[in-house]
Amino acid sequence: MPTKSGPSRRRFLTTGLVAGIAATTAKADPITDVQPWAQGLGKGVDERGYGMPSPHESHVLRKSVPWLVAETKSSINFTPLHQLDGIITPNGLAFERHHSGVAEIDPAEYRLMINGLVDRPMVFTLQDLMRFPRHNKVYFLECTANSGMEWRGPQLNGVQFTHGMIHNVMYTGVMLRDVLAEAGIKTEGKWLLAEGADAAGLSRSIPLEKALDDCMIAFKMNGEALRPEQGYPARLVVPGWEGNMWIKWLRRLEVGDQPWHHREETARYTDLLANGASRRFTWVMDAKSVITEPSPQAPVSHGKGPLVITGLAWSGQGVIPRVDVTLDGGINWHKARVDGPSLDKSLHRFYYEFDWDGSPLFLQSRAHDNTGYVQPTKDALRVIRGEVSNYHNNGIQTWAVYSSGEVENVEIS
Amino acid sequence: MPTKSGPSRRRFLTTGLVAGIAATTAKADPITDVQPWAQGLGKGVDERGYGMPSPHESHVLRKSVPWLVAETKSSINFTPLHQLDGIITPNGLAFERHHSGVAEIDPAEYRLMINGLVDRPMVFTLQDLMRFPRHNKVYFLECTANSGMEWRGPQLNGVQFTHGMIHNVMYTGVMLRDVLAEAGIKTEGKWLLAEGADAAGLSRSIPLEKALDDCMIAFKMNGEALRPEQGYPARLVVPGWEGNMWIKWLRRLEVGDQPWHHREETARYTDLLANGASRRFTWVMDAKSVITEPSPQAPVSHGKGPLVITGLAWSGQGVIPRVDVTLDGGINWHKARVDGPSLDKSLHRFYYEFDWDGSPLFLQSRAHDNTGYVQPTKDALRVIRGEVSNYHNNGIQTWAVYSSGEVENVEIS
Repeated sequence: MPTKSGPSRRRFLTTGLVAGIAATTAKADPITDVQPWAQGLGKGVDERGYGMPSPHESHVLRKSVPWLVAETKSSINFTPLHQLDGIITPNGLAFERHHSGVAEIDPAEYRLMINGLVDRPMVFTLQDLMRFPRHNKVYFLECTANSGMEWRGPQLNGVQFTHGMIHNVMYTGVMLRDVLAEAGIKTEGKWLLAEGADAAGLSRSIPLEKALDDCMIAFKMNGEALRPEQGYPARLVVPGWEGNMWIKWLRRLEVGDQPWHHREETARYTDLLANGASRRFTWVMDAKSVITEPSPQAPVSHGKGPLVITGLAWSGQGVIPRVDVTLDGGINWHKARVDGPSLDKSLHRFYYEFDWDGSPLFLQSRAHDNTGYVQPTKDALRVIRGEVSNYHNNGIQTWAVYSSGEVENVEIS
Repeated sequence: MPTKSGPSRRRFLTTGLVAGIAATTAKADPITDVQPWAQGLGKGVDERGYGMPSPHESHVLRKSVPWLVAETKSSINFTPLHQLDGIITPNGLAFERHHSGVAEIDPAEYRLMINGLVDRPMVFTLQDLMRFPRHNKVYFLECTANSGMEWRGPQLNGVQFTHGMIHNVMYTGVMLRDVLAEAGIKTEGKWLLAEGADAAGLSRSIPLEKALDDCMIAFKMNGEALRPEQGYPARLVVPGWEGNMWIKWLRRLEVGDQPWHHREETARYTDLLANGASRRFTWVMDAKSVITEPSPQAPVSHGKGPLVITGLAWSGQGVIPRVDVTLDGGINWHKARVDGPSLDKSLHRFYYEFDWDGSPLFLQSRAHDNTGYVQPTKDALRVIRGEVSNYHNNGIQTWAVYSSGEVENVEIS
């Protein structure tokens, strides 16, 4: 069994193990040897003007699961969570999911129409939108199908594939309420249809209460323009709610008095229950967490001694005041250290440091959100929603860590 | 003269100007026309695995000033501040400054040595460093020479060139105090020498008090590995202090009882005063701000009416509770809206929205930090430091906005 004393800085600092490792693995003597990169001038400043990662990081990529869908235009690639740290997802590694491929839009020709139950139907250019007061918020975007296949037990051996349909960036945009106010919502307006400019014309019904609360029309992510695959030049931001509602390449907003019952809220993105009925309009992404390292794609390569466990936690309801970690499959839970900015409806980063004695572990994490909700087990979800669900799987994930350091996706009851 | 009523949501929303502009410039009718990008399937998910900006954003680049230095290996390129928003700088656009080019390091061969007045001289691999408890912080890094040429009055017509030697990312790393504790600092240790693995062996003396306070050894920026030009695989983070102390490609930390008086803290990075003496060890970057839009590279292209002024403010002392904006060169100051996370020693984003009547403006911004310090005028700096200084220019910047919408770098007294 693992040492259960929890993270102890004193213990860590007195093991001497770090130095021991270094002394046995260092090939060059940094005192007497001059490393090759210190022997001459390196490359000058980047002349392309847009920098890229080190060639040594060329394995850090969004990846697809080829058998998952028939066609890349309706496919997914996954954020490499096991290789990232902190809470910001770099734009180049933010997962993609399209319904008819990436709409490639000339920003000069971009238009957003507002129609329906409004006083003044309007058409905005991108420049028009940028003249409203701008706001900056870091939000997670999670596909409702994230971890979906895991509903039936372990399917994919890597956190990139089990939990990688999520990203977290700083958006800059304008409040949807400000733009709608310009058109003037009629008294009978209760719902909003948001429609994308892709060939799928992906559309979702959003209650006006949410639209007027914290929704944004974003045109920047992490400081620069939205990436094409994220809806360039403008997308909807629907904080804390399922990702398919964050309409990309936003071209139309219609105000109505009831939902539209379009394809992606009836035939898709509903939750089949055991009794054959389907739940619909299950918008909020509930509290969830996962350990990103160690994980099947990021095994323990340094043997026993000080081990850093890290992961992500999030909730569509708000912030994450607490995350627990277990080393023994839920017999004993330890309070993890949540580190970095704790922002509303944003990823939170947690750590749990301890001395690993090399015995096998069953790692799990469990998020608590500010409403008091605690992330459930997969079994608890199945009791309510049956065995054949898919969306909204926020169950606790288990990784088995073997003495060799290898890690496997498992489920324990 | 501009309207001085300040930002007014009501005024903005009742002008109807946004709709007016849209109605006259829209080429396609989004009601009856189907845009080309909605007529067929777009590209599938990215197969390279690392996404890039839209081709329509290919003008958003780090740029150099060719005549500034003789050689790209000791050169600078500048962050395109006028094209960014929010507070996060995307990694590909974070400015570079090298003294002997980019050291290209194999992370497997990376070593960090700690020597000098320590109980146990040590050598760490990159993996060793990653086994210490990790922390996540967003910090600005500003070159001490940022805005340096402007000391002598307006030189460069663009905020990218006057203020673009700054970036702001989320670092993941370990606390320097934790790593130093592993080696054990002797009682007589008072200073730390940090040395880079580039051919220049760039080195700076840092008082141990700062090193043990908030300094970090970072290995990730905005979630992914440090970029090569930012010190891959590990750099020093010295929050709030001048950028050249944030040693890149960190290879050695030596503990001593006095500063080393190396080249980059004697012959360079000192401030020549009017009386011929030089100030040295002027580490902290004082409170500063600049309007990024409109600015010479980002003129007003939409004519009069609602105008969004935005910019950045920061302080090496802490946070920015307040930014003022003037439209008339300092006769009347208006309180700007600081938006987004307010984090210690991080960039802050501010906005000031108003109705522009088309008359010429003299735009300035003025940052206040949490110590009560207020960003000074350039003239006030010159009174203390003379006419020929260069580093630590945190003076107020002026942009002249003409009725045409064009913007020019000017100075007013």
